[in-house]
Amino acid sequence: MLIRPRLLVDEHRCRRNIERIAEKADRSNTQFRPHFKTHQSVEIGRWFQDYGVTGITVSSPEMAAYFAQDGWKDITIAFPFYPGMVKQLKELNKTCSLRVFVNSADDLEVLQNHLQNPVRIYIELDAGYGRSGLSTSKPEAIHKLIRDMERYPIAHFHGFYIHDGDTYSARNRKHILDKVQRSIDALQYWKNEYPSAKISLGDTPSASVIETFSGIDECTPGNLVFYDRMQVAIGSCTPDDMALFAELPIAQHFPGQNRAIVHGGAAHLSKDSIETEGIKIFGQRVVRTDNKVELMDDSYLTALSQEHGTLSGTDGLEPDRQKTVLIAPVHSCLTANLFSSYETFGGRTIQKRVLS
Amino acid sequence: MLIRPRLLVDEHRCRRNIERIAEKADRSNTQFRPHFKTHQSVEIGRWFQDYGVTGITVSSPEMAAYFAQDGWKDITIAFPFYPGMVKQLKELNKTCSLRVFVNSADDLEVLQNHLQNPVRIYIELDAGYGRSGLSTSKPEAIHKLIRDMERYPIAHFHGFYIHDGDTYSARNRKHILDKVQRSIDALQYWKNEYPSAKISLGDTPSASVIETFSGIDECTPGNLVFYDRMQVAIGSCTPDDMALFAELPIAQHFPGQNRAIVHGGAAHLSKDSIETEGIKIFGQRVVRTDNKVELMDDSYLTALSQEHGTLSGTDGLEPDRQKTVLIAPVHSCLTANLFSSYETFGGRTIQKRVLS
Repeated sequence: MLIRPRLLVDEHRCRRNIERIAEKADRSNTQFRPHFKTHQSVEIGRWFQDYGVTGITVSSPEMAAYFAQDGWKDITIAFPFYPGMVKQLKELNKTCSLRVFVNSADDLEVLQNHLQNPVRIYIELDAGYGRSGLSTSKPEAIHKLIRDMERYPIAHFHGFYIHDGDTYSARNRKHILDKVQRSIDALQYWKNEYPSAKISLGDTPSASVIETFSGIDECTPGNLVFYDRMQVAIGSCTPDDMALFAELPIAQHFPGQNRAIVHGGAAHLSKDSIETEGIKIFGQRVVRTDNKVELMDDSYLTALSQEHGTLSGTDGLEPDRQKTVLIAPVHSCLTANLFSSYETFGGRTIQKRVLS
Repeated sequence: MLIRPRLLVDEHRCRRNIERIAEKADRSNTQFRPHFKTHQSVEIGRWFQDYGVTGITVSSPEMAAYFAQDGWKDITIAFPFYPGMVKQLKELNKTCSLRVFVNSADDLEVLQNHLQNPVRIYIELDAGYGRSGLSTSKPEAIHKLIRDMERYPIAHFHGFYIHDGDTYSARNRKHILDKVQRSIDALQYWKNEYPSAKISLGDTPSASVIETFSGIDECTPGNLVFYDRMQVAIGSCTPDDMALFAELPIAQHFPGQNRAIVHGGAAHLSKDSIETEGIKIFGQRVVRTDNKVELMDDSYLTALSQEHGTLSGTDGLEPDRQKTVLIAPVHSCLTANLFSSYETFGGRTIQKRVLS
């Protein structure tokens, strides 16, 4: 009997998802440097080693330190460098080869003054997504930063990075390909300007749908290990690729209203949502077997409080017998971030990093 | 220099918020049994003892166990009982006086079969909010459940509970009062039916704005210790009552675009949002002094990735000097849930419970 909400990981599907991208990267002679912010688990991290992965991507120095303790030595911190990071980078820099994102000569100065060993520098490009990095609409600032690096022996210019979050607003595979083309064009433009630079592409939707990474030196998708309901909606995977599920106790069932209250709220799923068929949803009920993950029609988490979830669409649930539901989360990265461990469908506990 | 996002607690404001409700409850001869899911901290829990609080409310058996270890002995678990809870309740029941929410005779049977000491039973009423509990539109089911309790010596009928989450959709104080009246009427109707039953009202908006709790036996608001930007929007507090802030490093500043990227994303703030002036926001920049909390006009977190926040409205921020911003979260309960500790403005660390 389930005593509280838990996260279930389908190891077989995770490995299949990893392998698919690793092979695509391999065929394109592209380095697969997966983003580990999604799972935040040393054990799941080791699964990637079976598919040739030796370098990883994280989103903070703390997360880098967590994986460095497990022996990872080649780590990209895919977040704009700020001076507060430097103390932790100094420690990490003793044992790891680090890659950091730098946006200004001031940051180079801080790195030079505090680090002992060289770090590789990525310039994060903003080709229109509008988040962090240097805008490709102002090329002179990019050229200048590359020239600035020559003054700082600690800084080895490595290349250009784009995480194109705009692909998350796509609605089908073609839409993803259209959107990411802008980023690929920008990376290739800068590769022509600096032929020795490496170019790196970050998001899961484009990594999932492009035929080949050909011409791209590195790819850093993260979500692909688990996928989720949002990725199904975008068209970057099928329901059967989803590998992370929240199992939630049914706390109160209203069969006459086709509705139930489950133990699973914003503290378990996060409040990330998508719209499907005009309804805002926080997850969808699934039936999972080894061979198939089936999305249950019209069975959604439609409201979340901190601990309560409202499941609309309970047809087929037997009120007295089946006391839990399996939910495909909307955004697996944020759901995983809210738990302190996973369980496999084989019943084994997998530890993960806890909170920031 | 701030090395990562942190949560800052204003102890003075917390205590003022606690005291205000404790005194209002005291004047009305109402028991204040605050919900501790908001702060999830034994130290902050002890602050409430200074204002006469001896019984508390939590949302899971785990959270009850966390506070029981610190000596709390009178605990309400404000979540519909489900059979998976019983093992933990059995343990808690050895040292604590427990109050649980029960919706069916089946649940009473499970409690009778597993617990050794009596528990007090609340019937959660749904007076129209549409979440958990028994609908007041079907009074016979409520009467029947009360009769059912007589067959189970373990179950001591205690009273009726309403958490009226509908007040969170209010837009001003009068609107809150209008909405909560439905719940108060329902509680008083059932008190008339069962005069020895206690009636208990749960939400922070109504606890904050009603003049008196007169006629209500217990109140269980939680958010009131910190308040947040949502409560300001609803009209249940002033900006100056807000007592929890996220301090976030500025990672990249685009002064020409009136925009910055901060280290603070969905993994720190949660994705809960409100609309203000037609914009969806995840937090607002503030300037805090001991005397005042000032909301900065047009300075909002307008987009969150897992670790990145986009701050729109950076006027007045000096790019080179002031390297952090202070953010009033939209929903302090969910923000607090994402951190493993707090710091006071005096520089002291306060531990809290970590994850579920």
